[in-house]
Amino acid sequence: MTEKNGMPREVLEQIIEVTPYAKSVGAKLIDYKEGEVSLEVPLKKELTQHHGFAHGAVVSFVADSANAWAAASVAGDVVTSEYKLNLLAPGVGDKLIGRGYVLKSSARQVVTRADVFAVKDGQEKFIATSLATIAVFKA
Amino acid sequence: MTEKNGMPREVLEQIIEVTPYAKSVGAKLIDYKEGEVSLEVPLKKELTQHHGFAHGAVVSFVADSANAWAAASVAGDVVTSEYKLNLLAPGVGDKLIGRGYVLKSSARQVVTRADVFAVKDGQEKFIATSLATIAVFKA
Amino acid sequence: MTEKNGMPREVLEQIIEVTPYAKSVGAKLIDYKEGEVSLEVPLKKELTQHHGFAHGAVVSFVADSANAWAAASVAGDVVTSEYKLNLLAPGVGDKLIGRGYVLKSSARQVVTRADVFAVKDGQEKFIATSLATIAVFKA
Amino acid sequence: MTEKNGMPREVLEQIIEVTPYAKSVGAKLIDYKEGEVSLEVPLKKELTQHHGFAHGAVVSFVADSANAWAAASVAGDVVTSEYKLNLLAPGVGDKLIGRGYVLKSSARQVVTRADVFAVKDGQEKFIATSLATIAVFKA
Repeated sequence: MTEKNGMPREVLEQIIEVTPYAKSVGAKLIDYKEGEVSLEVPLKKELTQHHGFAHGAVVSFVADSANAWAAASVAGDVVTSEYKLNLLAPGVGDKLIGRGYVLKSSARQVVTRADVFAVKDGQEKFIATSLATIAVFKA
Repeated sequence: MTEKNGMPREVLEQIIEVTPYAKSVGAKLIDYKEGEVSLEVPLKKELTQHHGFAHGAVVSFVADSANAWAAASVAGDVVTSEYKLNLLAPGVGDKLIGRGYVLKSSARQVVTRADVFAVKDGQEKFIATSLATIAVFKA
Repeated sequence: MTEKNGMPREVLEQIIEVTPYAKSVGAKLIDYKEGEVSLEVPLKKELTQHHGFAHGAVVSFVADSANAWAAASVAGDVVTSEYKLNLLAPGVGDKLIGRGYVLKSSARQVVTRADVFAVKDGQEKFIATSLATIAVFKA
Repeated sequence: MTEKNGMPREVLEQIIEVTPYAKSVGAKLIDYKEGEVSLEVPLKKELTQHHGFAHGAVVSFVADSANAWAAASVAGDVVTSEYKLNLLAPGVGDKLIGRGYVLKSSARQVVTRADVFAVKDGQEKFIATSLATIAVFKA
């Protein structure tokens, strides 16, 4: 891993700040270490589906962001190439948490895993898992 | 395929109407046949990322909806089990179009494919493709 | 697409010839055009599982080869980065056929789709589908 | 998790014994606990590709088996519905090891993860990771 190429936390936070979609869902970076990150999204009503659960697209946003930001922490500027998402349980509660991990980093791509949890009354429930390939810019 | 179990168009449209996330992004069902559907999402600023392209989560919403709605057209009540999404090009333009197709329908699950296109100045560009497993309720 | 960089058919066939695994399963290239290929594997007993169906690993070999060879037809030397495989029906019959298609080709990767069919008494049955990301060497 | 429905180790070993493909590659179950399994495949020449590395289909066999056997350990009779495989590094060495883990078990499906390692001179190298959906029979 070439961690010296990781994106500084301040730069990632500035990008989140100027990303209209991330702002509109209220995404917030929580932990940011080399190869391991976490983020939160409050579960507002606009982010639910017809049963009141977190909409799949929001779960997907949390997973995708956790994967991409984990990759950025070791490789700097990146763009998601592809990911697979398994939905394990309905997302019910006050907020979603995403945790992303770098599995393998190479010059042109980073392979990452991210898990998503729903938090209700302080209890975390594991609701989704994902596996992603993130492309590195100008490698 | 047990198409007689498909969800009527009116029922799906009522579900979309009471799905806060689908309403907030402005999703609209266009074509709805047994095993083949299409939908549109206008590319408002809130749906973009920091370069002005459609945010990956919105592309994912379009793909996921096209997959799930294609499955509903043959199997009625369904829930997404998992999908893989490959992002092929930036989503630039006025709207996104998703087209979903049933590949295989069985009693307990439907396997579907969905492609996403960005429309700019009347020209369609192929920007993402996906492959999904959709679970059937109470089969 | 930079088809001028595609691998010539003779070169691919020489590689297959010196690939012990491909030889041991009896894989044979059938059609080879820019962005579209097909191959066959005879269903010998060693390639089955305990119910007599084609083993999942053989279906996976056919899908992976169809994806990688389709990518080679437009991009030359390639290596599979990742793929997703959906198994749709048991593989019963005399042989398996894989058909691979290029969906998008860029400088560093090719995104492909491949379908697998089992042939019994001259009838083809659709038994698996896959979506892959294939990395291009030295791009 | 309904672990009481798990397949006994002896039953799984008998199935492996009568699976021609598993026999022909020399697959051997190593550890078998509820929700966690490992297996080995010796890297014979027939299992390699033209550079002498483990062929992708063999890596895929190891990952698929680790996923399916982990699911069997909690759910009994199962069949692979789909999986995604990321290849991380060439498989070089004396044998491959697959380790499978249950992430979520429900009445009709089990979601699992499996990692693949190549062992050379006693050193393990992480060469592939996968995420799978395994269907439960007669649930």
